[in-house]
Amino acid sequence: MPSQSQADIGLIGIGLMGENLALNIASKGFAVSVFDISNERVDKFTSGRGSAGRTGGKPIIGCHSLQALVESLAKTSTVARKIMLMVPAGKPVDDIIAALAPLLAKGDILIDGGNSHFADTTRRLKMLEARGLLYVGAGVSGGEEGALLGPCIMPGGSGAAWPHIKPIFQAIAAKVDIDVNGGVPCCDWIGADGAGHFVKMVHNGIEYGDMQLICEAYDVMRNVLGMTAAEMHSVFSSWAEGELKSFLVEITRDILATHDEDGLPLVDKILDKAGQKGTGKWTVNLALDMAVPLTLITESVFARVLSSMKDERVLASKTLAGPSPVFAGARQGFINDIGHALYAAKIISYTQGYQLLRAAAEHFGWTLNYGGIAMLWRGGCIIRSAFLIKIKQAFDANPALANLLLDPFFTQTIGTAQQSLRNVLVQALQHGTPMPAMSSALAYYDGYRCANLPANLLQAQRDFFGAHQYERIDQPRGKYFHTNWTGRGGETASGVYAG
Amino acid sequence: MPSQSQADIGLIGIGLMGENLALNIASKGFAVSVFDISNERVDKFTSGRGSAGRTGGKPIIGCHSLQALVESLAKTSTVARKIMLMVPAGKPVDDIIAALAPLLAKGDILIDGGNSHFADTTRRLKMLEARGLLYVGAGVSGGEEGALLGPCIMPGGSGAAWPHIKPIFQAIAAKVDIDVNGGVPCCDWIGADGAGHFVKMVHNGIEYGDMQLICEAYDVMRNVLGMTAAEMHSVFSSWAEGELKSFLVEITRDILATHDEDGLPLVDKILDKAGQKGTGKWTVNLALDMAVPLTLITESVFARVLSSMKDERVLASKTLAGPSPVFAGARQGFINDIGHALYAAKIISYTQGYQLLRAAAEHFGWTLNYGGIAMLWRGGCIIRSAFLIKIKQAFDANPALANLLLDPFFTQTIGTAQQSLRNVLVQALQHGTPMPAMSSALAYYDGYRCANLPANLLQAQRDFFGAHQYERIDQPRGKYFHTNWTGRGGETASGVYAG
Repeated sequence: MPSQSQADIGLIGIGLMGENLALNIASKGFAVSVFDISNERVDKFTSGRGSAGRTGGKPIIGCHSLQALVESLAKTSTVARKIMLMVPAGKPVDDIIAALAPLLAKGDILIDGGNSHFADTTRRLKMLEARGLLYVGAGVSGGEEGALLGPCIMPGGSGAAWPHIKPIFQAIAAKVDIDVNGGVPCCDWIGADGAGHFVKMVHNGIEYGDMQLICEAYDVMRNVLGMTAAEMHSVFSSWAEGELKSFLVEITRDILATHDEDGLPLVDKILDKAGQKGTGKWTVNLALDMAVPLTLITESVFARVLSSMKDERVLASKTLAGPSPVFAGARQGFINDIGHALYAAKIISYTQGYQLLRAAAEHFGWTLNYGGIAMLWRGGCIIRSAFLIKIKQAFDANPALANLLLDPFFTQTIGTAQQSLRNVLVQALQHGTPMPAMSSALAYYDGYRCANLPANLLQAQRDFFGAHQYERIDQPRGKYFHTNWTGRGGETASGVYAG
Repeated sequence: MPSQSQADIGLIGIGLMGENLALNIASKGFAVSVFDISNERVDKFTSGRGSAGRTGGKPIIGCHSLQALVESLAKTSTVARKIMLMVPAGKPVDDIIAALAPLLAKGDILIDGGNSHFADTTRRLKMLEARGLLYVGAGVSGGEEGALLGPCIMPGGSGAAWPHIKPIFQAIAAKVDIDVNGGVPCCDWIGADGAGHFVKMVHNGIEYGDMQLICEAYDVMRNVLGMTAAEMHSVFSSWAEGELKSFLVEITRDILATHDEDGLPLVDKILDKAGQKGTGKWTVNLALDMAVPLTLITESVFARVLSSMKDERVLASKTLAGPSPVFAGARQGFINDIGHALYAAKIISYTQGYQLLRAAAEHFGWTLNYGGIAMLWRGGCIIRSAFLIKIKQAFDANPALANLLLDPFFTQTIGTAQQSLRNVLVQALQHGTPMPAMSSALAYYDGYRCANLPANLLQAQRDFFGAHQYERIDQPRGKYFHTNWTGRGGETASGVYAG
């Protein structure tokens, strides 16, 4: 064991994520000390997977108290203590901060690597900065295996902490473009306050959308075309080589080729009842607060909810009427349409997600590197895809881009693909196959490119019953008008109505 | 002026809503005393609109302090003091409660008639009941004129308060079925805690949905059929006499017949940029919390947001491609389809709203009278319609009805109308007309009646990358399975991916 006060970083909470992250750090040549509320867990780890000789790098130092953990860390005039929390979000984070903060000195760095809500991170940062400490909220994506082999890391918070943690974080992060100087790390500084956890949250929301879109593409092939898992495997195999190339398309391809013990496709044996952990919901809540029309992710969250009502759906399927036509078009052409529709809807989902990033940056005063965020997501995380480079290129060409759809590449791509999205939705509607996310994508596209929405009527209604006033197309903005619609001199229609 | 301690109810906050409510109460023969932070406002009111001889009933007693207001109220062993707050939601309510509570005695009743969030109402109720006071959160709908002529009132909170306030509230409420014993009041007890304000909130969410659906029906007539305001006025006139009969359809009919000074339709001069006050957002937030797929109201909230991005839309309309076909079908048949589509979508919106009522009742332990709530909404409020009686009948037939769509009337009605909804959406998609709310309605309907959604694939994906496990269709529920999809022994796929 190294002598005291030599560890490069301390880690609190050694569940599987924490263990794997510690092993990843040690394997990159950093000395890491660990603490857990369970001393047994510490001992088991440091004598097992984390024992000297098994880390592929520096040994891991087990600590039986927070005090011991703090004392194990190197601290000089230029080296700050660095402690990373890998504990459940919520009260556990606050509890550990309360116990740990008094043991730390000015300039020491606390990092929350869990799934905290970004608003909690901002709150904790303000509290700790007031005490002279530095605080970082780092979104870590990639699950347990990502933690071990290379996660996508999205750190934000006290800017002064970044130079201290950058060498470790960028060493352990996933790498892309590995022919470029040994690889580009999927980790860079996101911004102030809880910006790191915020970007991680949006990532998760986008993940909800991507998964739902793939499910809808699968569903329309299954229901409208009656395709088998093997046939769909072949389609996803080709998609995995083109513009749709992504981790989620690849695992879908592999899932469709996986067989149960009886030789039948395993996917057909799985119950259609989706779970969720709540970060999709957080994203929608924020979109509502920021007034960003994040319709596709929202529909994806609600689609999971509807799927969870399995028994009710089975019951309803026996009584509620729907159509049952037979597909009469050209099959291969329609399969191509489905691929283009998936791409079009994905573009719209990321467009909406980026609108949320932009709105939050403006609201909270963050300077976000939009193209850089897309680059971070290229490795280690669930939404990694070939497509992300296009977002980077769009923001390189115009850092002030108001909406991704207005970038020439996306304008042209969706201009072509939108007709496929229409074709697929028309078939799905006629076959009674629900496509809530793709429907919301096209409604957003058609709404966004619509110079005149019917909200003129809505404003007339609001003025009619609530005297809310309206603006006029032939008068300057900000000039409000009210009409006495009823001619009775009152502000509103009669309150008495026998319907 | 009557002698001290004789007023039946006190009212705090005399903006237009408060004034009108006081006049309404006085006109029904109850003595009402009023207080406002502005003594001038009190004096102006009691010497003007509220002066003796002008109320059409009892005089209105002006008070210059909270103490005076309390002392003006009748109080006996069987009569509790009753004070209603008509002040802005939020801090003003808390401030007045803090100042007022010490002046009141056990059993006295405080009523919040403003637009408070129901969670605030529950919080205040617990605090005041602990001090021996009774608290009521009453949702009041109908705007300023409704307050004067008869609002829809949704009171909930301390059940012991209801017998005391019932005579006043039911006297001032809107009346429907006026041939039945002088009319049925649109006011009844909703339930415990903040249930009254909760039901008012859901009402507002449903109002968002109803308005958006009418706008989409208008938009498809305008864009796909190229109809003029006069032609659409004629369509809405016929709808106002049938199953769509409702306040909002009637005012739309009237709006479409209203002309600007130059003789052209006024609606065509109004800017398509919708405002909102936030209660729609509250409803969606709660749906997310309660895991209720409230997709139609959510899309309606986001549609207002998108409409507010007017300048961006005008810009986007110049570059983003869409279709431009010419409608080639039978026009009158299609107009009929639009009406049926509107009705089908409305049924689905109320179905979702009632799912939210049910989920909240279960979560908060409230006993809600679902049919009764529909009856309350028949008068005084924005969503009053002939349709509501069908909801009442459905819950009369089966008080435990799990979903409105499963009631025989609704099953049959939507079974017929769903094809019209499909036809309209297909045309809208092909013409590039966005119909986010109607699209979400059909996606919900097709999803709810779908025995097998594609969430089996989604669960496979979640198990693939996160070892989240899945249930199987051939195994008992609650039994979870994990597959080593990659065959590499790890829980997840490789965390490193060069996309």
